[in-house]
Amino acid sequence: MWSRSEKAIAREAFDAALKRELRELMQETKRMADQITKPTDMWALERYLTQRRKEIDRKYEFRSSRLTQTFGRLLCERRVSQVELSGLREDKLKAIRSCAKVFSEDID
Amino acid sequence: MWSRSEKAIAREAFDAALKRELRELMQETKRMADQITKPTDMWALERYLTQRRKEIDRKYEFRSSRLTQTFGRLLCERRVSQVELSGLREDKLKAIRSCAKVFSEDID
Repeated sequence: MWSRSEKAIAREAFDAALKRELRELMQETKRMADQITKPTDMWALERYLTQRRKEIDRKYEFRSSRLTQTFGRLLCERRVSQVELSGLREDKLKAIRSCAKVFSEDID
Repeated sequence: MWSRSEKAIAREAFDAALKRELRELMQETKRMADQITKPTDMWALERYLTQRRKEIDRKYEFRSSRLTQTFGRLLCERRVSQVELSGLREDKLKAIRSCAKVFSEDID
């Protein structure tokens, strides 16, 4: 259950994180393209973009039932900050932090 | 039936055309990446690369049974010149030119 004001906070944090990640990816795309010297570099860029597009599609899910996991992962990856999530109810923040911890353990 | 010397001529012309097309595509990739200002530009580049990769895979077929069509198309697209094909037997050149004509009519 996300209240209207919580949804507004979530939406803002979510959009900001997505925007930052896409901006980073645009820069990385330009960098990779700039360094293309042979055809395999170009096909590596194509594969990289396909893989990142799928990963971003999976990662940025705004459905209420997935929002805790979404923010857990974004928090773990330092793509959202706790400050951006302030205003959410404490039980949600706790669930998001637990989720972030699980993600970080998966990475280790 | 392609003789050994004809195959050598064909291989050289084929490789040169492929190399030129890939070089053009690398330049186009750099140009498109350079002009990325928003995420949709980046996904357009991904789609463009996928489409061009498939098209090039289909176009550059070196099997003997496909070589006439391959060169017909490359000739039609001015990706190989008649000079590069000189040394092939006249019946093959004629078949390649007919094929090029069919391709050019398909385009019109």
